[in-house]
Amino acid sequence: MAHDRDAAPAPAPEAVTVVGLGLMGQALAGAFLRAGHPTTVWNRTAAKAEPFAAQGARLAGSIGDAVAAAPLVVVCVSDYGAVRELLDPLGAALDGRVLVNLTSGTSAQARETAEWARHHGADYLDGAILAAPQAIGTADADILYSGPRSAFDPHEPALRALGAGTAHLGEDHGLSSLHDAAVLGLMWGVLNTFLHGAALLRTAGVDAAAFAPLATKGIGTVTGWLAGYAQQVDDGAYPADDSTIDTHLAAMEHLVHESEALGVSAEIPRFFTILAERAVADGHGGSGYAAMIEQFRTSAQEVRA
Amino acid sequence: MAHDRDAAPAPAPEAVTVVGLGLMGQALAGAFLRAGHPTTVWNRTAAKAEPFAAQGARLAGSIGDAVAAAPLVVVCVSDYGAVRELLDPLGAALDGRVLVNLTSGTSAQARETAEWARHHGADYLDGAILAAPQAIGTADADILYSGPRSAFDPHEPALRALGAGTAHLGEDHGLSSLHDAAVLGLMWGVLNTFLHGAALLRTAGVDAAAFAPLATKGIGTVTGWLAGYAQQVDDGAYPADDSTIDTHLAAMEHLVHESEALGVSAEIPRFFTILAERAVADGHGGSGYAAMIEQFRTSAQEVRA
Repeated sequence: MAHDRDAAPAPAPEAVTVVGLGLMGQALAGAFLRAGHPTTVWNRTAAKAEPFAAQGARLAGSIGDAVAAAPLVVVCVSDYGAVRELLDPLGAALDGRVLVNLTSGTSAQARETAEWARHHGADYLDGAILAAPQAIGTADADILYSGPRSAFDPHEPALRALGAGTAHLGEDHGLSSLHDAAVLGLMWGVLNTFLHGAALLRTAGVDAAAFAPLATKGIGTVTGWLAGYAQQVDDGAYPADDSTIDTHLAAMEHLVHESEALGVSAEIPRFFTILAERAVADGHGGSGYAAMIEQFRTSAQEVRA
Repeated sequence: MAHDRDAAPAPAPEAVTVVGLGLMGQALAGAFLRAGHPTTVWNRTAAKAEPFAAQGARLAGSIGDAVAAAPLVVVCVSDYGAVRELLDPLGAALDGRVLVNLTSGTSAQARETAEWARHHGADYLDGAILAAPQAIGTADADILYSGPRSAFDPHEPALRALGAGTAHLGEDHGLSSLHDAAVLGLMWGVLNTFLHGAALLRTAGVDAAAFAPLATKGIGTVTGWLAGYAQQVDDGAYPADDSTIDTHLAAMEHLVHESEALGVSAEIPRFFTILAERAVADGHGGSGYAAMIEQFRTSAQEVRA
């Protein structure tokens, strides 16, 4: 039988429940409602739910009602302790639901919660939101999921209402929080060094706003190297195609001296210096910068401030 | 008189001298030669100069001959000590030259060298190369100059042969090395946190190559925030438009725990945590992340590992 794709009616948006209406939960509920999903909301403090009635949401009278209202239950609360505290009393009512937990936590918490959900007969997806609340439901929101593909696929259209960057990373429930953690680290790496650079430039009367375009360009250049460095990491070989860790270390020491001479905090470059010195002591002075991965793989030699 | 721009003959490429033929100096000399500049080269170890004869360079017999050969003298050696050691003996021979020093150093060294050059009657530009040697002479090479505009402008066409991203930052000779330092800090911020993230993900069997695209996307997102944060820095007001430092701190602690639990080094997130805790102690828990600038502006509260 021929299938005319263009003529196939779009499936009706499925019913969803959102548990937790903090800033992020509110953004999630709003995105579902805007996409036409019949949406039930519940929050421990009922006052936060009330504004959603005007947008067409159904306000559940209890967490049990909320979970019963839809096959897809999206949870976004303060931490994993709160998730378990809220849902554990529901027992058999969780059976057959797909729980999507967008609460921030560690990979171990995600894996433990998956095990707990399995005991209650629920399918479980752990998710991580790489976006600010105001980006939810837009092309800019990346939301990463991990857990059974069989739980993700049927609900992907609904989850896609939360952000265009919806991706399933794999079956291991820990993957989304691990990726989240790795990207958060990059965020602080960029922000701290940008602000330190702005502090340095301020001593010469340069505004941070004047630095931002050059910083953006510099970050773009470095970002272009990541795939090559990643390949070296995966190969376990770190040829110094560009410059050696010895050369980096000398430049780091310049940055320490520059900061000290200007009365600006030198702690960021000094920290980088300590890491690089350790790599040199481990015999990687002539290696490319990717060899620094070996400083991060174990906790054996950690700097403790 | 009408001026027909298209018909105006391009000025002949001016004569230049390159002093120092390390990896970067070789790249500089090569780029001048490819752009058709009559190029004189000199290196302390003459053997490094010889290959350039085949490319049309004139090999100077002494540093004095090299400096006498062209009005524009580009110096790229190991450090500022070497610059002075090489050029100081030339005395009056420096008079009327434009010295362009692309050696890496601090802003104080740049300003001192400008003063020294002035005493010898030379115009002085300090420069910083934000590119690997293989990018010199291409669209990807950013080279920043600071010092008198009157010295830069006449030689800008020659300097542009070294990279499309040629920019004059201002009269203060310290500006190029300060910008260089700030961009280098960003580079290590990105690379260290990328490699730490790759180490985290490796524990779940994820290749660094698989992480690179998501890292690139995440960095792009954060880079998009810099102009806004810069404005807050310049305004001295840090409203938490997205999330507070308290929220960041909680997420940093997740990353510390995640790293510890997986046996990966926790030192990078722990270092970030210490900085953020200090901002909270200073009353910035409810501020946006740009308030961290205040942790970097002085050396008073530095973390010493």
